[in-house]
Amino acid sequence: MGEAKQVIQALGIKAKAASRQMRMIETRAKDEALKTAAVLLRSNMADVLAANALDMQAADENNLEPALKDRLALNAERVESMAQGLEEIAALPDPVGAISDLVYRPSGIQVGHMRVPLGVIGIIYESRPNVTVDAAALCLKSGNAVILRGGSEAIHSNRAIAKVLRQALSQSGVPEDAVQLIEQTDRALVGALLAADEYVDVLIPRGGKSLVARVSADAKVPVIKHLDGICHVYIDAEADEAMAVNIAVNAKTHRYGVCNAMETLLVHQHKLDLLPRLVADLIAKGVEVRACEKTQEACQGLDVKAASDEDWATEYLAAILSIKVVRSVDEAMDHIAQYSSSHTETIVTADYATGQRFLREVDSSSVMWNASTRFADGFEYGLGAEIGISTDRLHVRGPVGLQGLTTQKWIVLGHGEVRS
Amino acid sequence: MGEAKQVIQALGIKAKAASRQMRMIETRAKDEALKTAAVLLRSNMADVLAANALDMQAADENNLEPALKDRLALNAERVESMAQGLEEIAALPDPVGAISDLVYRPSGIQVGHMRVPLGVIGIIYESRPNVTVDAAALCLKSGNAVILRGGSEAIHSNRAIAKVLRQALSQSGVPEDAVQLIEQTDRALVGALLAADEYVDVLIPRGGKSLVARVSADAKVPVIKHLDGICHVYIDAEADEAMAVNIAVNAKTHRYGVCNAMETLLVHQHKLDLLPRLVADLIAKGVEVRACEKTQEACQGLDVKAASDEDWATEYLAAILSIKVVRSVDEAMDHIAQYSSSHTETIVTADYATGQRFLREVDSSSVMWNASTRFADGFEYGLGAEIGISTDRLHVRGPVGLQGLTTQKWIVLGHGEVRS
Repeated sequence: MGEAKQVIQALGIKAKAASRQMRMIETRAKDEALKTAAVLLRSNMADVLAANALDMQAADENNLEPALKDRLALNAERVESMAQGLEEIAALPDPVGAISDLVYRPSGIQVGHMRVPLGVIGIIYESRPNVTVDAAALCLKSGNAVILRGGSEAIHSNRAIAKVLRQALSQSGVPEDAVQLIEQTDRALVGALLAADEYVDVLIPRGGKSLVARVSADAKVPVIKHLDGICHVYIDAEADEAMAVNIAVNAKTHRYGVCNAMETLLVHQHKLDLLPRLVADLIAKGVEVRACEKTQEACQGLDVKAASDEDWATEYLAAILSIKVVRSVDEAMDHIAQYSSSHTETIVTADYATGQRFLREVDSSSVMWNASTRFADGFEYGLGAEIGISTDRLHVRGPVGLQGLTTQKWIVLGHGEVRS
Repeated sequence: MGEAKQVIQALGIKAKAASRQMRMIETRAKDEALKTAAVLLRSNMADVLAANALDMQAADENNLEPALKDRLALNAERVESMAQGLEEIAALPDPVGAISDLVYRPSGIQVGHMRVPLGVIGIIYESRPNVTVDAAALCLKSGNAVILRGGSEAIHSNRAIAKVLRQALSQSGVPEDAVQLIEQTDRALVGALLAADEYVDVLIPRGGKSLVARVSADAKVPVIKHLDGICHVYIDAEADEAMAVNIAVNAKTHRYGVCNAMETLLVHQHKLDLLPRLVADLIAKGVEVRACEKTQEACQGLDVKAASDEDWATEYLAAILSIKVVRSVDEAMDHIAQYSSSHTETIVTADYATGQRFLREVDSSSVMWNASTRFADGFEYGLGAEIGISTDRLHVRGPVGLQGLTTQKWIVLGHGEVRS
């Protein structure tokens, strides 16, 4: 057996054992562990920042990009924000053990569902030390054991944070192996983790497209993927114009680098007259507009570039927007079916039948009517926390909170019933 | 591109197109199609039976095993039973489009879930023509498009049945490509179907272990597996003895060849005195008993064989039972954690705390208290129909009905809200 496989096996055996204990641990103990972790993170701030300084020094030596360095860097404020995150998760309701739909059947038995943890979750992420805290806290609260694999650039920070988290667990009567960090930076360990179907129940990659693609391609266990999004806003013939402009501007310009930002705007041909002021507004905000011919005609005098076919399939994550004029809601939905990444699409319309059709027929993880795509978010949906967005079809779709980290089993309560 | 891949691609493109139409098809049209299929199955009974006769003739020529021939054979009664199955599924409520948990958020938006079809489902099964009807009907009712791949021994029967089903669809305004059968028997087509992640959203194997194992190993898309079961009954120290004996006998002897039959009985050491009469009862019913030493001691004079370690890990699917005496509920749960196939386990106890612990801590798709394992069944649970049992953790666990063939998307209803 290779060395990497041995390391993962050792972690896996401990995680599996911890996960059995986690299934029955009291809510109070889990919450206590989260609150203790917040206290310890604050009281060990000097150690965590010293560890982070080592990572930042290595980052300087290796000429890491400024954006990556910014994500890696910790300071008192960011550590305090992690601690508050732990307290917020402690305050959420415990999803585990909840019983629903318990009904009597003609045979006399009662049948229902009980919500239970997934088991052992592997999280593979990049060099953001806050993910170590976030991911561990969400897995802990949902009764899972977690094996964390962060980017090697953050290894000192992650070790320091994981030490604090495990100390909090053991002080609170929670098995400390419920949170384990892969302490080695050897890349072979990622491969071994992806193949560890004997110990890991589900993998969650958090990071850029290449990381997610690699995990999806090689994983031997189910993967909960949060891919980025090519989100659409469709302004229908029956849209309220002020509302349409307001939603389109918000969906594009509220934040550029996020997966729920609009990347393509579809406009019904009867609404061409709102394009000049909308496009002028976007350009004034610094947005580059790439559009179909009809949009260009409607916006003469404005700096509108021609969109290529590639634009419709591109997630800019930047101050760029593609715009296309469509003849009908059907053409809008056809375009979405072809180019959408199944993340979030919204229609702006005052027409009941058209809105109902869009809601039902568009096959994305979030489908909206008269609201900005920016609302596709665990906090905005009331999940209290979010480990990511799933654009897959099975198990969980859209923002994933504590419930997405659990599954259900059937329970049957009888009085001695037998099958006849 | 290989020929098999081309065949699957052609089916896949049609299935994908049909599945987009199926998302918005009216409940009435789906139900009409199912009821029409029942009518046509009855009126085309001669054709279906003639096609089946060809399969039976080939089966004779190839010396197929009697059990396989029995599954393959159709007669008027079996075709009538298929037709009734179609009518029963037509009568079930439509899961698609159901909206739940729609709540107002502080931002003003309403957020909730809408139940939607999975998309395109591939079903791979053995030579049971009734599965062609069953699987197609469940996929249709749940708004999915299905690609069916039945065993080659049943190809004539399946072609005749699929023809009737597709005729019913087109007569009812439902796209006939919602139900497609792979008409060729070339084995390479299975491989191509397993790899067709561009067209197929989920695969469901229905059949023996080797089929399920092959599909699980090679599939490039999620698989809903219904494996067989090593189900346990645990008779606790605080069990009512008459109830315990009744449940154990029913769980073992009601039917032998089914996945929810008990394969191992665990008995608390304080209940040794019920073993002789229970074992005598089982032996009288023709059950072979293989047991631990303590059981053998308690049952002196009865024909109880010694169980080997392999027995605890064996699904007999036959009139054989393994019995083990345990010192505590913890030992029972340890044994279950080690040997169970996560299908169904039941505890017999009058003790509240012990029952609660078992219910919560045992990690199987169905966990029961004072009821026979034989109740783990879609009809008994009130699903109205069952496409199989899932022993996986994600998406769906236990008996899988119409709901298990759907997923959910988030819907947001706004009034022009934007993110601030």
